[in-house]
Amino acid sequence: MSEHPIVELTSASSWAMVEDKFTPFGKETLAKLIKFQEEEVLPAIKVAQAQLPDDPVLRWKTVIPIIEELKVKARKLGLWNLFLSKAHYPEFGVPLTNLEYAVMAEVLGRAGHLGSEVLNCSAPDTGNMEVLARYGSPEQQKKWLVPLLNGEIRSSFAMTERFVSSSDATNIRTSIRQEGNEIVINGHKWWISGAGDPRTKIHLVMGKSDPDNASQYNQQSVVIVPADTPGVKIVRQMQVMGYDDAPEGHSEIIYENVRVPLSNLVLGWGRGFEIVQGRLGPGRIHHCMRSIGAAQVALDTMIQRITDPSRKTFGKFLHEHGTVLAEVAQSRADIEGARLLVLSAALQASIDKYKAKGALKEIGIAKFVVPSMALQVIDRAMQSFGAQGLSQDTELAFMWANLRTLRLADVSKSVHIQQVAQRELKRAPALVKKTAEVKKREAALLEKHGLKPRA
Amino acid sequence: MSEHPIVELTSASSWAMVEDKFTPFGKETLAKLIKFQEEEVLPAIKVAQAQLPDDPVLRWKTVIPIIEELKVKARKLGLWNLFLSKAHYPEFGVPLTNLEYAVMAEVLGRAGHLGSEVLNCSAPDTGNMEVLARYGSPEQQKKWLVPLLNGEIRSSFAMTERFVSSSDATNIRTSIRQEGNEIVINGHKWWISGAGDPRTKIHLVMGKSDPDNASQYNQQSVVIVPADTPGVKIVRQMQVMGYDDAPEGHSEIIYENVRVPLSNLVLGWGRGFEIVQGRLGPGRIHHCMRSIGAAQVALDTMIQRITDPSRKTFGKFLHEHGTVLAEVAQSRADIEGARLLVLSAALQASIDKYKAKGALKEIGIAKFVVPSMALQVIDRAMQSFGAQGLSQDTELAFMWANLRTLRLADVSKSVHIQQVAQRELKRAPALVKKTAEVKKREAALLEKHGLKPRA
Amino acid sequence: MSEHPIVELTSASSWAMVEDKFTPFGKETLAKLIKFQEEEVLPAIKVAQAQLPDDPVLRWKTVIPIIEELKVKARKLGLWNLFLSKAHYPEFGVPLTNLEYAVMAEVLGRAGHLGSEVLNCSAPDTGNMEVLARYGSPEQQKKWLVPLLNGEIRSSFAMTERFVSSSDATNIRTSIRQEGNEIVINGHKWWISGAGDPRTKIHLVMGKSDPDNASQYNQQSVVIVPADTPGVKIVRQMQVMGYDDAPEGHSEIIYENVRVPLSNLVLGWGRGFEIVQGRLGPGRIHHCMRSIGAAQVALDTMIQRITDPSRKTFGKFLHEHGTVLAEVAQSRADIEGARLLVLSAALQASIDKYKAKGALKEIGIAKFVVPSMALQVIDRAMQSFGAQGLSQDTELAFMWANLRTLRLADVSKSVHIQQVAQRELKRAPALVKKTAEVKKREAALLEKHGLKPRA
Amino acid sequence: MSEHPIVELTSASSWAMVEDKFTPFGKETLAKLIKFQEEEVLPAIKVAQAQLPDDPVLRWKTVIPIIEELKVKARKLGLWNLFLSKAHYPEFGVPLTNLEYAVMAEVLGRAGHLGSEVLNCSAPDTGNMEVLARYGSPEQQKKWLVPLLNGEIRSSFAMTERFVSSSDATNIRTSIRQEGNEIVINGHKWWISGAGDPRTKIHLVMGKSDPDNASQYNQQSVVIVPADTPGVKIVRQMQVMGYDDAPEGHSEIIYENVRVPLSNLVLGWGRGFEIVQGRLGPGRIHHCMRSIGAAQVALDTMIQRITDPSRKTFGKFLHEHGTVLAEVAQSRADIEGARLLVLSAALQASIDKYKAKGALKEIGIAKFVVPSMALQVIDRAMQSFGAQGLSQDTELAFMWANLRTLRLADVSKSVHIQQVAQRELKRAPALVKKTAEVKKREAALLEKHGLKPRA
Repeated sequence: MSEHPIVELTSASSWAMVEDKFTPFGKETLAKLIKFQEEEVLPAIKVAQAQLPDDPVLRWKTVIPIIEELKVKARKLGLWNLFLSKAHYPEFGVPLTNLEYAVMAEVLGRAGHLGSEVLNCSAPDTGNMEVLARYGSPEQQKKWLVPLLNGEIRSSFAMTERFVSSSDATNIRTSIRQEGNEIVINGHKWWISGAGDPRTKIHLVMGKSDPDNASQYNQQSVVIVPADTPGVKIVRQMQVMGYDDAPEGHSEIIYENVRVPLSNLVLGWGRGFEIVQGRLGPGRIHHCMRSIGAAQVALDTMIQRITDPSRKTFGKFLHEHGTVLAEVAQSRADIEGARLLVLSAALQASIDKYKAKGALKEIGIAKFVVPSMALQVIDRAMQSFGAQGLSQDTELAFMWANLRTLRLADVSKSVHIQQVAQRELKRAPALVKKTAEVKKREAALLEKHGLKPRA
Repeated sequence: MSEHPIVELTSASSWAMVEDKFTPFGKETLAKLIKFQEEEVLPAIKVAQAQLPDDPVLRWKTVIPIIEELKVKARKLGLWNLFLSKAHYPEFGVPLTNLEYAVMAEVLGRAGHLGSEVLNCSAPDTGNMEVLARYGSPEQQKKWLVPLLNGEIRSSFAMTERFVSSSDATNIRTSIRQEGNEIVINGHKWWISGAGDPRTKIHLVMGKSDPDNASQYNQQSVVIVPADTPGVKIVRQMQVMGYDDAPEGHSEIIYENVRVPLSNLVLGWGRGFEIVQGRLGPGRIHHCMRSIGAAQVALDTMIQRITDPSRKTFGKFLHEHGTVLAEVAQSRADIEGARLLVLSAALQASIDKYKAKGALKEIGIAKFVVPSMALQVIDRAMQSFGAQGLSQDTELAFMWANLRTLRLADVSKSVHIQQVAQRELKRAPALVKKTAEVKKREAALLEKHGLKPRA
Repeated sequence: MSEHPIVELTSASSWAMVEDKFTPFGKETLAKLIKFQEEEVLPAIKVAQAQLPDDPVLRWKTVIPIIEELKVKARKLGLWNLFLSKAHYPEFGVPLTNLEYAVMAEVLGRAGHLGSEVLNCSAPDTGNMEVLARYGSPEQQKKWLVPLLNGEIRSSFAMTERFVSSSDATNIRTSIRQEGNEIVINGHKWWISGAGDPRTKIHLVMGKSDPDNASQYNQQSVVIVPADTPGVKIVRQMQVMGYDDAPEGHSEIIYENVRVPLSNLVLGWGRGFEIVQGRLGPGRIHHCMRSIGAAQVALDTMIQRITDPSRKTFGKFLHEHGTVLAEVAQSRADIEGARLLVLSAALQASIDKYKAKGALKEIGIAKFVVPSMALQVIDRAMQSFGAQGLSQDTELAFMWANLRTLRLADVSKSVHIQQVAQRELKRAPALVKKTAEVKKREAALLEKHGLKPRA
Repeated sequence: MSEHPIVELTSASSWAMVEDKFTPFGKETLAKLIKFQEEEVLPAIKVAQAQLPDDPVLRWKTVIPIIEELKVKARKLGLWNLFLSKAHYPEFGVPLTNLEYAVMAEVLGRAGHLGSEVLNCSAPDTGNMEVLARYGSPEQQKKWLVPLLNGEIRSSFAMTERFVSSSDATNIRTSIRQEGNEIVINGHKWWISGAGDPRTKIHLVMGKSDPDNASQYNQQSVVIVPADTPGVKIVRQMQVMGYDDAPEGHSEIIYENVRVPLSNLVLGWGRGFEIVQGRLGPGRIHHCMRSIGAAQVALDTMIQRITDPSRKTFGKFLHEHGTVLAEVAQSRADIEGARLLVLSAALQASIDKYKAKGALKEIGIAKFVVPSMALQVIDRAMQSFGAQGLSQDTELAFMWANLRTLRLADVSKSVHIQQVAQRELKRAPALVKKTAEVKKREAALLEKHGLKPRA
């Protein structure tokens, strides 16, 4: 281990910007995390891949042994549930700020899915634990939050629907209605991440319980549905650019007359929109930082490739081509700028803990900048490998496919762009006022000097 | 004045990243600077323009009265020579860090040339004062540095040459040779900023005093040439996209048998390259921050335009067009990311005061990212104004032209890109080593589990 | 002269695509044009520049002698009014198709304003001659079209207005009303090209004669206003990126109670919109081809620069830098693709002579592709020259400024984009129908083979 | 069927550019092809997918029945081996020009792999048939070319090697040596397309037979290796972005002491480089046109999606978003420009049949423009579908993955860029000469008028 693992792994200049905002505990945890990842997690990636069967049926029934072993180790080291900030969840959380965890999320992103999962920090469990910690009844917390926090079970969040543009939550059609002291759910969802995993025991299902409510934002409710409830039918697994992401997968699911007890309602009738909004906030920052970790890995991989002494074409090493060098420099600049943007958003989110909306513009910027940036960096790295860069021999192609979905996740890129722009436009009145003041002084000054402005 | 002028003028999130790195003096100076600019400098821009004659001869002989008035006011307020850091120049400097002045440089950049000039902070004087403060003899300092520091005279730095690619200093042809106790200079320079100004009293001229020296970096010397020395001939003023930048201008100059006393040699024979290198470092950061200030003004201008209620085309206000909104959001993200990159480079440069090269990669990134970014933001703003955006009615076209030269100044964009890339490549051995360690552990782990990696 | 001047000047591959669509007369005229340009026009550019005075007043009163000399020569050679197609204007036109003249327009574009003007083919005269040839009364034709066709006078088209978004013609505010047998005009126009020229004798003024007409497209009329009519006041000349384009210029004009006889009304009351629409069609293609000529000149200039043996930086010639080479290749590809797009639009416009709207999509594509493309090519060329590329020493900076306005002229880029997209969307029903047919056959085929589609 | 299927399927304006270059036979064949594709091929795509087993072993042993049925039908209709031009292969070819087949290749590209395969027009068979038709001995032609032409067997071309940058053919390491009247082959190849297919009966293997030959281009030979020869070991199948492209696949193959009779040598010892060069020429144009077909399908798919009345987010249909419209227009322009570039290259290649290198610049441009363009168009279409666009529910993700390899195939993008640029630079001397002539005339003209050029 080097003396400055953090600087090496992230970047000296970004680190300088945030170092003094870290507590000693934050720094210590980060150092421990980096050591654990390098010594235990990165070497285990190919093991986990080898432990997943090829067989199209078996691969969805497998609990990968190495992951469970690493979870035990991580927990012993205190590298567990780091995403859950004590500031927001005093009962369950870890004393790390949004900013501190953001830096760690970049580290996690360097090891793909595995990096987060072995620390019990992977989506959609993270968001679900936050929902249950914040809104769950004591009974719900005991029954499902505790085993989730312990990494004993996994979970899904069922929002996206087939046949409708459900990135706009008001379009949701799944019906959730009370019958006696039961709740009956009917709906057709897809892209439900994690639902393929044998360890997934619950789905948090979003649907409409009051579709005629005058307020579009009070029509939805969220209900906990145990995965083995009759009527829960996994129709198929969606592929992403040819990958099935087994065993988690992205399932298409029909909920057909699914019945759960009334006590499975989360927070209360008509509060589904509120739950979803809270769920998406800080998680976006962490997604972004993981993407930056992926982009950094891609650049590191590219650098190793283009300096490989055995690679020479048309009399030149790859790193001697001006265009290849330009891509390296551009990638470095792209990553650095994006990293600072997200860290800045994370800091803003840390500061504004009491007014959660404070960082929305910064988060919005991060959301539309980062995935495109990371895809470009990865694409350049793939190109530097030739066809091998698209194959199973590097992680690049899988990383690209994974990142490509992030350009679509939550809500789409253009929505983020519109939101950021609308917030910018709110500066207009202040700008107009300031301009008017300058113009007034300018007029006085011109008059005083007996001058006319130039035509 | 608002209570948080800094946040408003720059950006809340960037400010949060650096606020705790400011001293009380730094914060106070920044606030004073913003107030001065809004109340005195911005209203004076059109006055200064009106005080410059149209006449093709007179415009090069004019000292603009309002500028001299503002200089007096600024100096009284202590807003003077802020670029000169006490940490580096204990005798002459102001107790501000590189980072603190970087934030101020963005503010200066909002008011064009005027913003810097009225604080005695404009190029090329800033670099020349640094050279004289660091390398000048006591006699040179007394004769020329003191009046420069007092804003009584101005100066030029004559490096670029006609007919050669002088962005590579080793190509320089101007001859500087000793004859008795005089120095004789012969050469053909151009793009010498400030040489047109009647207040400019000295040129620092770079040339070759020892062209056959085995080391390419010991062939050059720098000599102080009073502007009125016989043989100094201003051939013409270069235009930039149709602008002449009078009265400073960018002169083409022939030095024909120009003779100065030996005491006008700066630092020593053969030390010209060293002087130039030192001159370019932190100044680049400040150029970048001024460009960011210009980009921010362009965005602010665009926002006012597209929310102008009198502008409606084809039934829509400009800000209702999705593509216009997308440009606003993109500009905001571009500026924010670039600003953080430059602040990060400035911080790095502040930290590494003893090893000046520490921030070179960060500065290099800033140099190739910022001008292109700012040009794009300004271009979008010009487009939002239609043809008016290209005319004399806004500052946008002039800002664009000015920024376009920055993509060329110092050394060219591609040189920065190559340098950044070369520094990135230096990470290769450490990456290869780390990868080898992971691979070794991976092999052991696969063997332990009796597995082969997937084909 | 080479044997294949056309191939050399344009491009071998584009020429192959259109050669068989040229008549012998078309080929002969093109060859003559190229010879005339190379031997007479290109060498005259600097002469014309030198004949224009620096003096801010005199430069607007000058008729440049060399231009008038070249006009006489060109006319003798039959290189005159080539823009006016006999197919559309049997009485006045030249037997060239839209496609043939498009190729010639590229050639004209290689020599800047001069190229077109010495052949009496420069805007806005071209559009005005078309209007008068198509819609003018015999009296109007005799009085103004004939001297225009003879190159004895020049003209302006006054449409754009200050203070309104007049790219949308329905916003126009200039009032045109009848009083007895006179027409009275009041309005505030700007960006009126050519109005600065002492040779300009008439303005075609567009205004609202019937602002309350239920149809937005019947409110406008066009009136011929002699330039010396009382009440025509040129307020100032607009600058474009610092250039004033003297002597033509882009004037701001106030028409204050301007009175002309009723016979100066063109075509009829309320037919202004119709006139403008007709005026813009094929001219756009020719503007585009001139821009392509400019881009080609920029690339040719860049190639000469980067192969200049005296240019060497950091041990390499400019053309040895991979990034510079990449820019050359990209510029070549960009120009070639754009050229083919415009030629294809020109051909479409030639074919569809009876249904003028046939080529609108193609023209729209050309309009939003070409100016951006040309600006990028010119910008790369400027960059290859360093600061000199922005100066008065090459034509590049002026070309860039001129092209930049084209991204704004007529209607704005985004309007063209929207129009092209809307036309694309009209293909939707046919596509849906075709897809349905394929799906139907597919279902039958799956059934026949006893198969289900893959999940 | 419509009356103008060609215009509808390709584009009216491109068609107008090339229509008069088609023979009646060309037009008739194209119409037949379009009808066959719409009625038979497109409906069969999902059938073919369903006929391919999921089982990881079986999918490599399957001959897909519907493909063989369609081959019979296509051959009966005369839609067979259209790629083989009679002008170049009088004995075997079809009377179509390069340009005519290029238009057809776009049509083929609309139906993915299937489109070409059912007409016996799919790579790598096409290139191999050309090699055998041009260079094969009568015995080789009888044994392997005839069954290939009949579509009875398939074939591979084994060039790319593992562990070396074999895009530069001089790096190849596979050893080919004579032992008695046998040839012995040892080498390690990968990305060998088609080698997984049970119908593939021969590999054309490129290797070094004379590695010490002074000429780098005489070291290589090509040998025909029957797929079932002992020592031919398929190691694994390479994946592309998660797709295995079964049953053809992209195999990694070790040739270990593979022995074939001396008569299996193609053309002669040391002529491998020559064979490869000839093989790559026109095929590149057809690859490009297929990619354009794919891009057009993507745009058509996007148009149907965004006009789908059931898709509405945040109160707007997708086609009402300005940014979505801008993407449609841009895609249309991108496709159209690229299509014309490739058609122009195809025409050039048709014209220059006697000097094969004539179209190299045009082909080079097409090669670096088209794949990037198509990837962008497909990416926009994917984005318009949300996550579904990345899934197995549309062809878009597979198309993207497939196109992404084209940016790498043959030789890499940057090589094409360099080649195009180098060819552009060859224009320098002529440009310099022409400029000198203009300058000379200019000097004379200035002198004649007693003028100096402006400073």
